[in-house]
Amino acid sequence: MLVVITAVGPDNVGLADPIIHYVTGLGANIAEIQMYDHDEEAVFAMFLRVHIDADLYNSLRTALTEIGRLKKLSIRVWSADVRRDCPRIAICTTYRPEPAQAVLEAIAAGDIHAIPAVMIGNRDNCKGLAESHGVDWQNIGGEKGEANDERMIEILDEYDVDYVLLARYMRVLPATSCWKYAGGRIINLHHGLLPSFPGIRPYHDANEVRMLTFGATCHFIVPELDAGNQIIHQETFSVEPGTKIEEIVRIGQEVNEPTCLVEGLRRVVAGEVELHFHRVVPRKSHD
Amino acid sequence: MLVVITAVGPDNVGLADPIIHYVTGLGANIAEIQMYDHDEEAVFAMFLRVHIDADLYNSLRTALTEIGRLKKLSIRVWSADVRRDCPRIAICTTYRPEPAQAVLEAIAAGDIHAIPAVMIGNRDNCKGLAESHGVDWQNIGGEKGEANDERMIEILDEYDVDYVLLARYMRVLPATSCWKYAGGRIINLHHGLLPSFPGIRPYHDANEVRMLTFGATCHFIVPELDAGNQIIHQETFSVEPGTKIEEIVRIGQEVNEPTCLVEGLRRVVAGEVELHFHRVVPRKSHD
Amino acid sequence: MLVVITAVGPDNVGLADPIIHYVTGLGANIAEIQMYDHDEEAVFAMFLRVHIDADLYNSLRTALTEIGRLKKLSIRVWSADVRRDCPRIAICTTYRPEPAQAVLEAIAAGDIHAIPAVMIGNRDNCKGLAESHGVDWQNIGGEKGEANDERMIEILDEYDVDYVLLARYMRVLPATSCWKYAGGRIINLHHGLLPSFPGIRPYHDANEVRMLTFGATCHFIVPELDAGNQIIHQETFSVEPGTKIEEIVRIGQEVNEPTCLVEGLRRVVAGEVELHFHRVVPRKSHD
Amino acid sequence: MLVVITAVGPDNVGLADPIIHYVTGLGANIAEIQMYDHDEEAVFAMFLRVHIDADLYNSLRTALTEIGRLKKLSIRVWSADVRRDCPRIAICTTYRPEPAQAVLEAIAAGDIHAIPAVMIGNRDNCKGLAESHGVDWQNIGGEKGEANDERMIEILDEYDVDYVLLARYMRVLPATSCWKYAGGRIINLHHGLLPSFPGIRPYHDANEVRMLTFGATCHFIVPELDAGNQIIHQETFSVEPGTKIEEIVRIGQEVNEPTCLVEGLRRVVAGEVELHFHRVVPRKSHD
Repeated sequence: MLVVITAVGPDNVGLADPIIHYVTGLGANIAEIQMYDHDEEAVFAMFLRVHIDADLYNSLRTALTEIGRLKKLSIRVWSADVRRDCPRIAICTTYRPEPAQAVLEAIAAGDIHAIPAVMIGNRDNCKGLAESHGVDWQNIGGEKGEANDERMIEILDEYDVDYVLLARYMRVLPATSCWKYAGGRIINLHHGLLPSFPGIRPYHDANEVRMLTFGATCHFIVPELDAGNQIIHQETFSVEPGTKIEEIVRIGQEVNEPTCLVEGLRRVVAGEVELHFHRVVPRKSHD
Repeated sequence: MLVVITAVGPDNVGLADPIIHYVTGLGANIAEIQMYDHDEEAVFAMFLRVHIDADLYNSLRTALTEIGRLKKLSIRVWSADVRRDCPRIAICTTYRPEPAQAVLEAIAAGDIHAIPAVMIGNRDNCKGLAESHGVDWQNIGGEKGEANDERMIEILDEYDVDYVLLARYMRVLPATSCWKYAGGRIINLHHGLLPSFPGIRPYHDANEVRMLTFGATCHFIVPELDAGNQIIHQETFSVEPGTKIEEIVRIGQEVNEPTCLVEGLRRVVAGEVELHFHRVVPRKSHD
Repeated sequence: MLVVITAVGPDNVGLADPIIHYVTGLGANIAEIQMYDHDEEAVFAMFLRVHIDADLYNSLRTALTEIGRLKKLSIRVWSADVRRDCPRIAICTTYRPEPAQAVLEAIAAGDIHAIPAVMIGNRDNCKGLAESHGVDWQNIGGEKGEANDERMIEILDEYDVDYVLLARYMRVLPATSCWKYAGGRIINLHHGLLPSFPGIRPYHDANEVRMLTFGATCHFIVPELDAGNQIIHQETFSVEPGTKIEEIVRIGQEVNEPTCLVEGLRRVVAGEVELHFHRVVPRKSHD
Repeated sequence: MLVVITAVGPDNVGLADPIIHYVTGLGANIAEIQMYDHDEEAVFAMFLRVHIDADLYNSLRTALTEIGRLKKLSIRVWSADVRRDCPRIAICTTYRPEPAQAVLEAIAAGDIHAIPAVMIGNRDNCKGLAESHGVDWQNIGGEKGEANDERMIEILDEYDVDYVLLARYMRVLPATSCWKYAGGRIINLHHGLLPSFPGIRPYHDANEVRMLTFGATCHFIVPELDAGNQIIHQETFSVEPGTKIEEIVRIGQEVNEPTCLVEGLRRVVAGEVELHFHRVVPRKSHD
């Protein structure tokens, strides 16, 4: 059984030792280990992928939770194998409802086998969409749409989600949040072709260099790395010369982005791909 | 009638004066005028778009040809309106036959109303393709595939072509050639999405930054400007994570590139687009 | 005598014809001619460099001014040769006084032979500096610092300036203004190394990619072209790893930028460089 | 005492476990841990920085060497603190002698306190330089200059070097070599300003975008990461418009590059900087 362990703490002294010592003592095999120091924000984090006997999964969770409590570290233990048949997802939104709606419809239609555990917004624009699909709605936004990032993590923990979907959620997740759900659990929809068109105005940027092809990118978020190297799916459309930017944006938002996100999420939920040393690779079967 | 005049000479002294003086004296209206100095290569060039009465077209050609002869300038006068219904095209190739073949088939099927006046290669790889479609074949290549660029221009002039199609022709045209057929007459097929992936290995470059979308670009060649801003059409395809580069290249070369070039050429021949101050714009009707 | 002619009008029909016809009729030799269409802003412009007998300069100015009046075109005729010994400059500023101050001091010290004809600001921050050097001060800014671009051109015309210096002037000149003073008359100071670090936060951008070298660029502004290809001078400084961004910015603003602008302006005023087909080249002597 | 441990092996199964288990069992504190999988080349590698009592250093080396022998892993244990006063360096060259010569002279003059343990070349061009300074010369190149990378590592191990200096060594080190000497031990001189001008022709590339500033970059090589983020020192020079590329290259090679490398090496040897989570930071004193 492949298990992902993440740990986040206020400094890097003593962050790794107790976890690693316990895990290797348990007879786990370390498949991947990464450690980061984001000292401007005083975020230190470790990420482990280990193979253990499935029998030991629960005791591993219990023990590491206890270590986290004692050492004041934020530790999470997770395996995609536990709910492989029907994982629980959180759908995060801001303004645009189309991608979230497409995902909810794909789930309802049985094209994606997942449970929409909760919808989260920093704005209330998609509240009605959540209610119409019978999904819990949680607003983490302040008056100006500023996001309560700690509350988001609490919600993700409470709803016990496997994957976090950023469906045109327009806030940047802080490094701590990315680390806590590291290992291929946070899936973002970017409304441009990565890595060529990052930024917040990718349609306009591509239009200004006179491209006739526009696209969307569904990718895992990997903390500390530039976006774009962890691409799960890309979907494009082409227009004729002279097409107005408003029409380009409309096609992108209403048609292309939702299609892109649905196919990307489907690949992850169906277990077709996984994150392996910062790269998206076809999933091999694990014992 | 919109007429394109190009002039190329060994220096910029006296390059513009006689042509401009004659043209304005004839009562033509100047719609666009550009002049370039590529002093490393001692190429000086001028490009004019002018509106004149259709009646004056032939005397304009005659007079400017005479001015060119006297001043030792290489001058060309051309209007897309003369053979708008069925323009003559030259198809230039090196190794890969697929794009040229797709164009010949689209013409044969009546999807593109044009005459394949001549096929030109710096290698003989596509000679059989030309012969099987009854098109004259001209080899301008040396032993190592080096191109005789002056001979190419002679052939284009002899065959009186309206448009030059670079159908995976793998040599860079010198600035002089670009200027002689400036004004939206040279159409290139690039096997990557411009402007993000220029260069000679665009499939590999996109693959190395982990993109899952690959494309081809059909664009006008504009001398002195970076490629990519004069895009006529782009065509893309997406692959799943883990797809081998060989398979990506195969799909691109056998399916995507030919489709891209055919649609791009169709737009030009059908008069849907034109080059206007270095930009591709939908064509307005001219009198 | 080398003369620069610029013309700006509301469309491109009839923009070029009367000017070109007059100029070629006068016996001038056209050295460079460019024409642009910025249709989003309905700005059409032409730029000419011509050689004429110095005797004809005044009648050329008079005649083209009259043509401009009749055709409702904004036409300017200028030659660097008229006041080559001591050209008149306008210094434009926003917040930071250091570059302007360094220029004024270099002029006062005789290192740059020029007359500071006027200082222009969209903010009043540098008003005291102008007054202390006895230079007229003109504020073209609104309440929020928005610039009255037409008023700026009026001032430049009234003060009959040869060169316009953007000394950390933080507003983008519109295309019309750039065209009216085209031909190597607008000199900008950018606080980063071009073309690598354009944008409004070049110190931060370079710091974020972990560079230890920072720089400033003095360049001509050429309408319609990306900044950076018309570089007159660049000046750099290096710091040790770990240097705070605040200290980097301080060194740049207080020491490096002023030095860069003074040397760049000195080169232009001393006639060491000129703009030739969009490139900065060492000046050849002209008759 | 801060100790760097590197391990390289043919796969990632069992690569980390025995080393980590031993190190944590010894009471070491893990300060940094990274693990990489370069599956195209079947290179799996781990990098550890740990704090231990200085007393334990020798037993740690002995034990890990034994683990490496048993598990068929290539393991190295190193601490900058052991020979902090006068580290041993290897200087690698290809054609150009200037940077190596400048380093040898700086050592001879006492400006850098280090021992030039060995010079290595894939060409014999710098052999005479080595001999004239009484430094052992080792040629690892084949007939066409191809490098024997395994032999280079053997030489570095035999001469027990602390730092490897790539002084215009024109071969790319394979990932295995980078990992074996990871942790801030390989110092490269690049003849352009990073990250703007990577590649093999940085002078020409900068000249082609019309820059007037050129530079060199001294940086640590970090496996799997793009060059340029680990900059130790950058040194620049500016030229006047119109300066020939040959003169630019000459100044760069003969003056600027040697100065850059000497200052970069001086900073490392003097203990002013260190590599900390892929970043160059001012060194804090460690116990």
